[in-house]
Amino acid sequence: MWIWCEWREVWNLRTKKQILRYLKKERSPWELINLVDSDLNEFVERLKELLEEGLVESINGKLYLTSKGEEERDRLNLRVYNTRCDRCEGRGIVKDPFGVLDEYKKITSNRPRPTAEYDQGYIKEEDVMRRIAFIYERGDLENNEIIVIGDDDLISLGMGLTELPKKIEVLEIDNRLIEYINRVAQEYGFSVHARRFDVREDLPEDLFKKFDVFITDPVETIEGITLFLSRAASGLKGKGSSGYFGLTHLEASLTKWREIEKRLLEMNFVITDMLRDFNVYPMKDNLEIAEKDYLIYRRIYELTGSERIDTDFYRSTLIRIEAIDEVRPIVSGKVELKDEIYVDDESLVTAKATRR
Amino acid sequence: MWIWCEWREVWNLRTKKQILRYLKKERSPWELINLVDSDLNEFVERLKELLEEGLVESINGKLYLTSKGEEERDRLNLRVYNTRCDRCEGRGIVKDPFGVLDEYKKITSNRPRPTAEYDQGYIKEEDVMRRIAFIYERGDLENNEIIVIGDDDLISLGMGLTELPKKIEVLEIDNRLIEYINRVAQEYGFSVHARRFDVREDLPEDLFKKFDVFITDPVETIEGITLFLSRAASGLKGKGSSGYFGLTHLEASLTKWREIEKRLLEMNFVITDMLRDFNVYPMKDNLEIAEKDYLIYRRIYELTGSERIDTDFYRSTLIRIEAIDEVRPIVSGKVELKDEIYVDDESLVTAKATRR
Repeated sequence: MWIWCEWREVWNLRTKKQILRYLKKERSPWELINLVDSDLNEFVERLKELLEEGLVESINGKLYLTSKGEEERDRLNLRVYNTRCDRCEGRGIVKDPFGVLDEYKKITSNRPRPTAEYDQGYIKEEDVMRRIAFIYERGDLENNEIIVIGDDDLISLGMGLTELPKKIEVLEIDNRLIEYINRVAQEYGFSVHARRFDVREDLPEDLFKKFDVFITDPVETIEGITLFLSRAASGLKGKGSSGYFGLTHLEASLTKWREIEKRLLEMNFVITDMLRDFNVYPMKDNLEIAEKDYLIYRRIYELTGSERIDTDFYRSTLIRIEAIDEVRPIVSGKVELKDEIYVDDESLVTAKATRR
Repeated sequence: MWIWCEWREVWNLRTKKQILRYLKKERSPWELINLVDSDLNEFVERLKELLEEGLVESINGKLYLTSKGEEERDRLNLRVYNTRCDRCEGRGIVKDPFGVLDEYKKITSNRPRPTAEYDQGYIKEEDVMRRIAFIYERGDLENNEIIVIGDDDLISLGMGLTELPKKIEVLEIDNRLIEYINRVAQEYGFSVHARRFDVREDLPEDLFKKFDVFITDPVETIEGITLFLSRAASGLKGKGSSGYFGLTHLEASLTKWREIEKRLLEMNFVITDMLRDFNVYPMKDNLEIAEKDYLIYRRIYELTGSERIDTDFYRSTLIRIEAIDEVRPIVSGKVELKDEIYVDDESLVTAKATRR
């Protein structure tokens, strides 16, 4: 029992500390989510405890430290410092090395709006360019054949604008996106081609072992991400091929992260880079897919009275993997999966309250 | 056979591409090492091939593209873009959020010089502060008990200056560093204490399961890093405790990285962050430990005629791990290990030619 209690304390304390630290001034719960490292379930639990213990209070949806909370903050020696670079927004990578950001924004301005049907939601155009810049830096862009599985971010068109890859193949389930990508690609003369694909099916036969690089943003259930990464992996040539995908802390606990990492190693990948908070989802745009239907919105509203998501709180870590030998996808062949691809107990944004 | 050839090509091509890309202008081999992702063995192999194929030539220790090389560069669509932020030197984290960098430089100005006996070599003061800032950001600094295994970087004194941790315990084999750290800590009133430790021994009994965070920069053989990380891990309280260490691409191939990652997961850690090139070793200072004795110096000299290491080419990825359950160190108890802790076929800087 003694050991169990000790673990428990370390585990909880980090999130509590980050909350108390950043409540140096009043903040909305959405701003706070942006500043802590934990997943959403843990965030809600810790915030609930702090409210119950009287260290934090909630007034009209804003959070404040009580005087008891201030004492605790001082006891724990918590202080606010600005650690992030303001020029590159803390990413280290500049947002427009190729000089195509304006054109890219023009291209994406009429994009199909995100739909809950396929759990869409896209990252900021600046971050798409940063992601491409990082892929470029690694030597994974020039003259390469690249497969993109699911492209509501429209990264295929951004890569097309750099004129660097040899060929980009997009697999998408959403016909609106397929048409949009193919139309723009034809208009601009990009080597980008999109076709319909359902992740429950195997890759089309002509795409097996044909690509140097994959890019995808999988759903974050264990079964779902294993499926996405297996399909993506089966498109890779082999040793030296690489893959890029996003993973959140918000909807994937670290226990889940560990299982995902284990499966990546099993597939003969090594993890080479993990860039925290590299991808930011602009809430203003993605909110079209029904703010009030987010499970997390309901839980935060009940806890704090916050009525509006006022911060781009949803962000993900960019992960790069590289094959060190023949790639061994965990899943192959057709699978039957329904909601369990998309939804588990940690899916507090992706899963819509209405769908549960 | 067909598959093997295909792998081979992807594997090699990335490094070749990065070399040809950055030879847009003349560069020393040391500048080039700084710009490619491969380990040193692979770098030397690929450079050798490019020289033999007549794509690159070497004049007085500087490297140039031949006209054949320029054709290949254009065929592969290779172009140079500046992707890194110049304000934070591409790290995303600012170098002095705590406002203590000047004082830290004063403190470290009389540091003991690196010695080959313990494979020392320290990172830039700015990068020590960045590393502390990242640890702070994660909520791992304030009010925590921190164990540092091996501290030629003097990160303990940098953390002391922030006044944020509760206690810092340094385990060191080098008596000069122990004395230096304890003297400065006493002078400044830091809660920092250093004592003698040989990684072949178990942690002192009073340090088992006592710390929230470990920091170390292990040697990069599989056996050596397993030993360092096991000792460090056995000092952690458990679930929620975290660890920070550096790992290079230069002396550790990706095959070795995968084995290290596998062992981390086995110990019940999850990898949460990997910041490429976060730590830079200032060659000017670390060269006191005998430039010409580096194995890599000899190989580069023989290949290119380069007589001087003119670039801070040695850099490492900062890796953060977190325990998701009880920590299970792979090694415990006393071990007998000699050179194989320090040296394997990938140790082209750490291993001194004279010692082989």
